[in-house]
This record gives sequence, structure tokens and C-alpha cells, in this order.
Amino acid sequence: MQNNGLLPDETAEDLQAGGLQLIQKKDAFRFGTDAVLLADFAKDIPAKRALDLCTGTGIVPVLLSHKTKIAALSGLEIQEEICDMANRSVRLNGLENRICMDCGDLKDAVSRYGKRQFGLITCNPPYMKAGAGIQNAIDTKLIARHEVCCTLEDVICVSADLLVQGGHLVMVHRPGRLAELLYWMRTYKIEPKRLRMVHPSPDRAPTLCLVDGALGGGAELRILPPLFLKGADGGESEELKNIYGRG
Amino acid sequence: MQNNGLLPDETAEDLQAGGLQLIQKKDAFRFGTDAVLLADFAKDIPAKRALDLCTGTGIVPVLLSHKTKIAALSGLEIQEEICDMANRSVRLNGLENRICMDCGDLKDAVSRYGKRQFGLITCNPPYMKAGAGIQNAIDTKLIARHEVCCTLEDVICVSADLLVQGGHLVMVHRPGRLAELLYWMRTYKIEPKRLRMVHPSPDRAPTLCLVDGALGGGAELRILPPLFLKGADGGESEELKNIYGRG
Repeated sequence: MQNNGLLPDETAEDLQAGGLQLIQKKDAFRFGTDAVLLADFAKDIPAKRALDLCTGTGIVPVLLSHKTKIAALSGLEIQEEICDMANRSVRLNGLENRICMDCGDLKDAVSRYGKRQFGLITCNPPYMKAGAGIQNAIDTKLIARHEVCCTLEDVICVSADLLVQGGHLVMVHRPGRLAELLYWMRTYKIEPKRLRMVHPSPDRAPTLCLVDGALGGGAELRILPPLFLKGADGGESEELKNIYGRG
Repeated sequence: MQNNGLLPDETAEDLQAGGLQLIQKKDAFRFGTDAVLLADFAKDIPAKRALDLCTGTGIVPVLLSHKTKIAALSGLEIQEEICDMANRSVRLNGLENRICMDCGDLKDAVSRYGKRQFGLITCNPPYMKAGAGIQNAIDTKLIARHEVCCTLEDVICVSADLLVQGGHLVMVHRPGRLAELLYWMRTYKIEPKRLRMVHPSPDRAPTLCLVDGALGGGAELRILPPLFLKGADGGESEELKNIYGRG
């Protein structure tokens, strides 16, 4: 291991957010735009404690430490090697007092953390059903992308136990799964309150959905203006640049 | 009554669709853009028989008679006076052999029509919950706009009984009710398959949602590119003009 805590197959990415860096694998396990958009979409939810399920590299808690005043941020990741990498990112940024990355199965999260503990839960879950699509040969990617260790229902069911009343579950998912996502939220009394579609451009179908639900909230969904990734000139839109801190 | 079947407080609107006309009240009960978009969104669903719930003026079956080859179109309307007006529109257009407007409560629709009878059901339901918002003083409008005679769940529950397996329920609703709409569809085994948001313009939140679900369909939602009502010049978009037959 090098002085900065990096393994030979890892790099440290500058997040352009107050000097924060994030450790990633060079070619196997890297965060995407979805996680950056998720952290931005969740940043205005007031909470004392927040938890990121399926945290992976830990990108969401690390970004939330910069974008919010939340005092205690936890990340839960089932893969030991990835969780270790996330914890090294926390130390690299000197954030040990605000962020804790835990290794474990989210289905055991209630016994780990207790019920009604978090004002905010975020999750960028595996997008594909187990067995659906082309399963990636690398195991760490397979677990991150396919529902082999947890389903969408698992994520939402456990969140309903972990959230305080009125607390928010904020998720990013593919449009193809939106009906299921809203269905499971309502089934577990997490009422969808905000929805934002993410489109490459105004004439294209959305490629991501951002959803914010409140435990025990009233039935009224606010659908926000769309987020377009590309501007009129074909490059990054101004809004995307601002979210990435490149504005 | 006049020769064309109109009452003194009614007008006949040219639908710009093969010479079709529709009778409306001068100031109380008129169809909106939502119904025109709904008929257009539903027009490619293959079906032998179709039913429009909460049919009102009968605009959706009348437009579908022009946009599709569906042999038997029914409309169900709870208000006798409005149903009578819809039936006079059918006669005005000489469509008695293809369209039948029935007066009755949709909660009794299964005993009226029988189970598994329709390949397509459309509905532009009352948008507001009973007691919510400013209830209109005119009774016919109140019933058409507020869920005093039927709820969103009633519409979807009865549709699940009336549809053939694989048949489609196509609805238009306000964005604020989208989570409930998708939830009730899935609860009654009508899987949401297509969703289209309708926005005034690309920078504005959607004002309507078009949803198409299939009874017993697999879980995979296709979200289409948005429909913008206004073009770059601030006037009607080309797509809206085409839908209205003004292209």
C-alpha cells in the first residue's frame, strides 16, 4: 500500500468539492454520474444522521459531507474489499469523525443500527434484476449491478424500518424500474414526494429517475422540471457542470 | 332542440378529424387538451372492443373512431344529461353503428358488460380528491373534476375485471397523482408499460402524465421522450398541432 492508502490497482479522483478525493479501482469499480446526481438531489433534506445503502466507493456520503451539515454519515456496503476502499477514502479526506463505512448485508441493517435512526437514507442500488441482462464476469461489478444480494423491495423495506417518521428515502434508478420503485415505496408507507427525470437532451427519453419519498408522508407527488445532461451546444449542460462543481 | 340535435346552451365543435363534430355545453362542460392527448396516446393499442370510462362529452370514443379501426367503442358516463349529449354527438356524426354511450356508475360496469370484454380501456378521470381544492359550484363540473362518484382505485379495480388478459388501460392524470396511479395499477395486476410526461416547455415541470398499463404484463416501464405543448416560438408545438389535426 502506498502512503496515501492506495492499492496498486487504484486511483484517487479529485471530486472538485472542497479538495475531496475518492479512491476508485482503475478499471473495475468506479462511481458514475448517477451517484453524483443522487447526492445533489438529496442535499436539501434536513437530517441529523444519514445512511447510504449499497454505498460502493462511498461517493454519496463523501459528497454529502461537503454539500450538507449532516453530522453523522454512514455507508453500508456488502463487499469487504470495496468497503475497505471506501474507508480508506474517508481517512484520505480526514473525515473519520463524520463518516463511517460499515461492511454488511443491508437485510441485517435494522439489527446493526436499530429502528428509526436516520432522517435521510440514500441508495444507488443494483439496477438489473438477477439473471437479467448480460451479467458482468467480474464479481464485484456483478454484485453492484445486479440484484444478487438484495432486491429493490429489500432496500425499501429495510429503509422503512430505519427511517424516523417523516424521514426521507432518496434513490436513483433506471426509468424501466420506476413503476416498481414507486409501488414498493407506497407499499412500505414511504410516500413518493419528488420525482425528477434525467434526460440526455430534451428530445430524448430519460435515462435515470431521481425519487424522494417520505415515511408517512401525504399522497402528493411533485414532478420537477427535467434535468438535461447536455446543453444546446452538445456539451455538458450548465446545470450538470454546477452539480459537478465545474460551473 | 334544434335540427342538428343541439340544445340552446350547446355548441358543436369541429374536431378537425375527418369532419367529426362534438357537442359541448357553451360554458360548463367542455373537453380539454388532456382528452385529445389521451386518445392520441391510446390509438396504437390493438383492440376489437374499447371502453372509455368517465367519458363525459364522449370525446375519446369519437376521436378513436377516426384514429383507429376499433369496431365497437363504448363510453360510460354517470351523469344522464351529459351522456345524452354524448349520444347526440354520436348521432350527429352518424356513428351509431360503432359507438354506444351508456349511462351508469362505473362501479357497476362488470355486471353491465361482463368480465374480460375489452382490449382497450381509456379514462380521463376526475383529477381531484373529494373535498380537495376549490369545488366548483356547478354540479356537472364537480362530478367530472372531483372523486365524488368514483376514486382512482375504483377506475383501476373495475378496469382489471373488464380487460382481456394483455389488454391495456390508458389514462391521463395530473403529475401529483402519478405515484398513486402506478401503485393502484400494479396492485390490480395492470403493469405500467408506457409513461409520457406532458410539459408546457422543456424548462417547465410536467402538467399531465399519460400512462399505459397492460393486464398481466411484465415489469418494465418505458418512459417516452417528453411531449412539449409549446414550440421554441412560444406557439403550439408541431407535435401538438399534429395531434389536433392542425399540422
